[in-house]
Amino acid sequence: MEKQNEVVLFGTWASAFCKRVELALKIKGIPYEYVEEDLTNKSVSLLHYNPVHKKVPVLVHNGRPISESLVILEYIDECWNNTPKLLPEGPYQRAKVRFWVNFFDHQIMARLLPIIMTRGEEREKAIKEFNELLKVFEEGINKDFPEEFPFLEGKTLKYLDIVVGTALCNYEAFHEVVDVVFSHEKNPVIMAWVKALKNHPLMKETLPPHDKFVDKMREKYLGQYP
Amino acid sequence: MEKQNEVVLFGTWASAFCKRVELALKIKGIPYEYVEEDLTNKSVSLLHYNPVHKKVPVLVHNGRPISESLVILEYIDECWNNTPKLLPEGPYQRAKVRFWVNFFDHQIMARLLPIIMTRGEEREKAIKEFNELLKVFEEGINKDFPEEFPFLEGKTLKYLDIVVGTALCNYEAFHEVVDVVFSHEKNPVIMAWVKALKNHPLMKETLPPHDKFVDKMREKYLGQYP
Repeated sequence: MEKQNEVVLFGTWASAFCKRVELALKIKGIPYEYVEEDLTNKSVSLLHYNPVHKKVPVLVHNGRPISESLVILEYIDECWNNTPKLLPEGPYQRAKVRFWVNFFDHQIMARLLPIIMTRGEEREKAIKEFNELLKVFEEGINKDFPEEFPFLEGKTLKYLDIVVGTALCNYEAFHEVVDVVFSHEKNPVIMAWVKALKNHPLMKETLPPHDKFVDKMREKYLGQYP
Repeated sequence: MEKQNEVVLFGTWASAFCKRVELALKIKGIPYEYVEEDLTNKSVSLLHYNPVHKKVPVLVHNGRPISESLVILEYIDECWNNTPKLLPEGPYQRAKVRFWVNFFDHQIMARLLPIIMTRGEEREKAIKEFNELLKVFEEGINKDFPEEFPFLEGKTLKYLDIVVGTALCNYEAFHEVVDVVFSHEKNPVIMAWVKALKNHPLMKETLPPHDKFVDKMREKYLGQYP
């Protein structure tokens, strides 16, 4: 008998890229099996399903694998195209969301590692750059999606909420381990948004527990800088 | 009177990223105005329409700007959703195309500059890496889209054809100025594909003229290495 809508997600619990897929599946109400990968000892299945990048997340739907978190999110939205939709309906609004999601991934996410991995002046510079980019992002989304901000609790999570929330809702762990990188004073729209996102029941259910995440960051990054 | 479907493309003739938008508009049969930008002296309009990245291509549709070539291609396909479609219909096939287009941009395109800008051993290494990635790409698309290869002349150009064709159909200019970076022996599927793409009337109409492109590469890159 052929399996219908069998969904398996290969992920790792501390990765924001995996968390975005988990959250999208939950928002859509799609039942799935979750396989936690040990990235120091990748499973045969992961290497089989993502031979090109050998990375998580990988979504396997009825035996067919899809890799790369943003490609997976678009797939989920197209495949389970009942409400709630992750992307808006109009082509122009969709383009704007895609533009800002790419900006977030390629500019903002890409600056997090230098903040974590450097010290002293270098880190100051990285934090300054990060903040300038966050400012551009904040002003941009506020201008392009005036109807979305301030984000009201109880609203359905959409594409930008997923991408930004799974990355930034852990900011307290980040501040505890590394440094204060953003604040209400510097980034009021994003802080208000992230705080509201943190209280969303599906986000709460999806985010890694604070203490476990703090330990993971300490182990992973600070181990190198005793 | 409101303008209907006024389409303006800001681009620069030697950029593959701009050429992909031009080609997509032509495939769809969308009339447009083209504005050539001087990147050493960007126009006020460009800075106004793309204040975030200040880069071409920018598509302005009825006064509303969209930036980033892949975001623009998706927009064009969604907005003018008559045939021919650039992306396939099924969500899984769409995901596969997006995956390989991202691979092409982030892995393969990203390796072209190191080949151009380095010499000696460093270049040898860059070419080797480029070829290994091209091999992965070739095997991947051949496996994922068996119905598309070999590409037959006369077929309608689609998303992958646009992205790969506008980047690689100039390979003879590349070989003339820089080095032989790919060949029929090493990359038979891609070479056959690129050669067929080069003969497509819309591709011919869109690609920069060989001699002009050679001069541009010489001026831009080789000027730094007399």
